[in-house]
Amino acid sequence: MNQDEQVKVLGLWGSPFSKRVEIVLKLKGIPYEYIEDVYGNKSPMLLKYNPIHKKVPVLVHNGRSIAESLVIVEYIEDTWKTSYMILPQDPYERAMARFWAKYVDEKVMVAMWKACWGPKSEREKETKEAYEGLKYLEKELGDKHFFGGETIGFVDIAADFIGYWLGIVQEASGVTIMTAEEFPNLQRWSKEFISNNFIKEVLPPKQKLATLLKAQFGSVTSD
Amino acid sequence: MNQDEQVKVLGLWGSPFSKRVEIVLKLKGIPYEYIEDVYGNKSPMLLKYNPIHKKVPVLVHNGRSIAESLVIVEYIEDTWKTSYMILPQDPYERAMARFWAKYVDEKVMVAMWKACWGPKSEREKETKEAYEGLKYLEKELGDKHFFGGETIGFVDIAADFIGYWLGIVQEASGVTIMTAEEFPNLQRWSKEFISNNFIKEVLPPKQKLATLLKAQFGSVTSD
Repeated sequence: MNQDEQVKVLGLWGSPFSKRVEIVLKLKGIPYEYIEDVYGNKSPMLLKYNPIHKKVPVLVHNGRSIAESLVIVEYIEDTWKTSYMILPQDPYERAMARFWAKYVDEKVMVAMWKACWGPKSEREKETKEAYEGLKYLEKELGDKHFFGGETIGFVDIAADFIGYWLGIVQEASGVTIMTAEEFPNLQRWSKEFISNNFIKEVLPPKQKLATLLKAQFGSVTSD
Repeated sequence: MNQDEQVKVLGLWGSPFSKRVEIVLKLKGIPYEYIEDVYGNKSPMLLKYNPIHKKVPVLVHNGRSIAESLVIVEYIEDTWKTSYMILPQDPYERAMARFWAKYVDEKVMVAMWKACWGPKSEREKETKEAYEGLKYLEKELGDKHFFGGETIGFVDIAADFIGYWLGIVQEASGVTIMTAEEFPNLQRWSKEFISNNFIKEVLPPKQKLATLLKAQFGSVTSD
């Protein structure tokens, strides 16, 4: 990598979206500067670099900014064609990876979040949706090591919330959707995912994350 | 293109999502067979090829199916590297195209739809969101011919709803968000977009579409 290149990530330490970006940079061996934004108080830098969504993560590469975590991940892949590639080369396999990443992002994560912390009236419906979504993922994973096959790929990175956050969210909220008994493949995958050294390096400490989540959202019983 | 290749599109004639797929196939000169699904009654073929979302469009290429219109569009681009490319080659420009396509898809279209036909209590909020979203697009387009520059690209295709459907939706619902006075760039773009011969060929007739929309959703006053 060109020594003059400047790669900055503007993130929040507890955000699975921010972590997607850091994970892919680590896996591809791209040095970057991490800048922590402020919880509950959007920084001037965030407003400057992501004026439309005003959300982390933002990647700033040589002064130019990119928002939306999965867009950033594809940008990193397109820009640094290192030996570690996260998307398959075959067009059909690429499409499948994009399909599942989108599914995790727009369906499963949203349903899980609402099942845990959404309006009480919607929780039953959302729990069912989250469960069904996880069942599809369980089946898609099958006995593969990772969604990406032998190595961590685009879908695994998109699913970092399921790999790490979900267990903590379940404990913090008191809502259980994914159990080891019903989701053995995801359980095995989750263990393998978080024991990767690069990933371990960027994940937030469990206790700190549980405290943050409880403080932000409370538990179901407090609702 | 290999003469043995089989390209099928399973769609609905009034769906802007289905039309995205047909538009990109036409622009790239890829012959395909169009199969109309059934409004209000999902066909066995749809359930077979898109068991998860059970939604059109589905692309079936040599027996393998792909769902999600923007995933399909990228698959077509990755598979057929014809002289007409819809995504820029430069990684930053590609990321910007993906960002704006996602913005149109997940923010602007959703807000516009809810502003016109969502629950009455949310219409004011959604109208404001749709308006702001269109303002960002108006600014992003600027005085370029198309979002893609001189030619129709990824964002233009993603925005086919704004280019063609929105005017008809506004008339059918009685809700006006985009006016020629406030959105001169989008207005000019829309005219140019729908006068492209390939696009003209696949767009549904205006009157037929208005009738469908009214039958499906009614007008605001009937709520």
